[in-house]
Amino acid sequence: MSEKTQLIPGNTLITKTPEEGRALAVKMARLIIKITQPDAKARERMRPTYANDAAMLIAIGQTVATEFATIAQANNYWK
Amino acid sequence: MSEKTQLIPGNTLITKTPEEGRALAVKMARLIIKITQPDAKARERMRPTYANDAAMLIAIGQTVATEFATIAQANNYWK
Amino acid sequence: MSEKTQLIPGNTLITKTPEEGRALAVKMARLIIKITQPDAKARERMRPTYANDAAMLIAIGQTVATEFATIAQANNYWK
Amino acid sequence: MSEKTQLIPGNTLITKTPEEGRALAVKMARLIIKITQPDAKARERMRPTYANDAAMLIAIGQTVATEFATIAQANNYWK
Amino acid sequence: MSEKTQLIPGNTLITKTPEEGRALAVKMARLIIKITQPDAKARERMRPTYANDAAMLIAIGQTVATEFATIAQANNYWK
Amino acid sequence: MSEKTQLIPGNTLITKTPEEGRALAVKMARLIIKITQPDAKARERMRPTYANDAAMLIAIGQTVATEFATIAQANNYWK
Repeated sequence: MSEKTQLIPGNTLITKTPEEGRALAVKMARLIIKITQPDAKARERMRPTYANDAAMLIAIGQTVATEFATIAQANNYWK
Repeated sequence: MSEKTQLIPGNTLITKTPEEGRALAVKMARLIIKITQPDAKARERMRPTYANDAAMLIAIGQTVATEFATIAQANNYWK
Repeated sequence: MSEKTQLIPGNTLITKTPEEGRALAVKMARLIIKITQPDAKARERMRPTYANDAAMLIAIGQTVATEFATIAQANNYWK
Repeated sequence: MSEKTQLIPGNTLITKTPEEGRALAVKMARLIIKITQPDAKARERMRPTYANDAAMLIAIGQTVATEFATIAQANNYWK
Repeated sequence: MSEKTQLIPGNTLITKTPEEGRALAVKMARLIIKITQPDAKARERMRPTYANDAAMLIAIGQTVATEFATIAQANNYWK
Repeated sequence: MSEKTQLIPGNTLITKTPEEGRALAVKMARLIIKITQPDAKARERMRPTYANDAAMLIAIGQTVATEFATIAQANNYWK
């Protein structure tokens, strides 16, 4: 498949394990930030801000939880 | 179909791949902002604000995650 | 049906197309604001505030996404 | 049924119409606020605050949308 | 069952009625706050803050709505 | 299984009881914060902030509720 994927690595929601599914959720959340702010330096400047702000860390957790819900369902919860 | 679509490009939630589904989620989220603030210049003025604000970037990620959940389910997770 | 509908236009979640479903999501979100703040002038005064505030526009997008998830499921994703 | 209901009027999620289901979502959201802040005067004091704050009105819409999702599913979307 | 339950009273999501399910949602939300801030006095100090802050009351409603969605589904909506 | 798990303890969403599922939800939420802010001292510095901030405690509850929804479904609600 030659389609350039910039939003979902591997162009699939299917993973071998829950751990890999969780890592995919984290990556998918980050890639949305990347296309909204494509400037790598600008993203880098924000890192100390959110990494030391409890409210933002919690908000990141909320987004990852929402992405993971979709991935977990796609994988039938790896049952 | 002659219906003018301003909210969902192509008037369908079905996409060929997860990557395209993800891109649709991003577009659908942006189109809601567009109909709420139809003035293109006003939207352009806000861009540096949200693109350099970690909390807003995270919030955009949350909205895209919610849109994507619906699109992924519509496509039976592209399985 | 003589029931006065002020919260869901047409008193149904079923729409012909995704685009119409999306428009219904927007309307349902607005009608909740309308019953919470019934004073049209007060709502009008707030318009420039939220239409020029990136964080609020994103939050509106989040609410519409949640309403749309329900409507999309009600319509079996228009498949 | 003699159980005192203070959280869900009628002790059921089933309603005749989408409009009634939506009204139930609004009531259920308000009743959570009521048990968290049981003082009616305190709640009344807050009314002008949230009724004139666009961000809070949007947040109320988000909560109602989440309650409604559950009620709509309980009623099989009134299909 | 000797397992100490500090997060879910009765170690079950099943309840007899919607009203009881709703009360369980409220309790489960509170118990997460309790394990995050185990100091009862600290929690007590925060009470007047959130009980008189409209934005926080709305946020509590959002969390309860999310917990309740899970409980309602576990109980097949008490149908 | 030799895969290093840093995001989901045990690399499974399946738990014996609702109580254990709830504890897993709490751990999964915390592990996302840990990989976003890997510096243990920095995380420790933030603890008094969020443990004494009602809004943040509520936000933590929201994230845990979202994680738990996925875990509960994976376990068919322990029925």
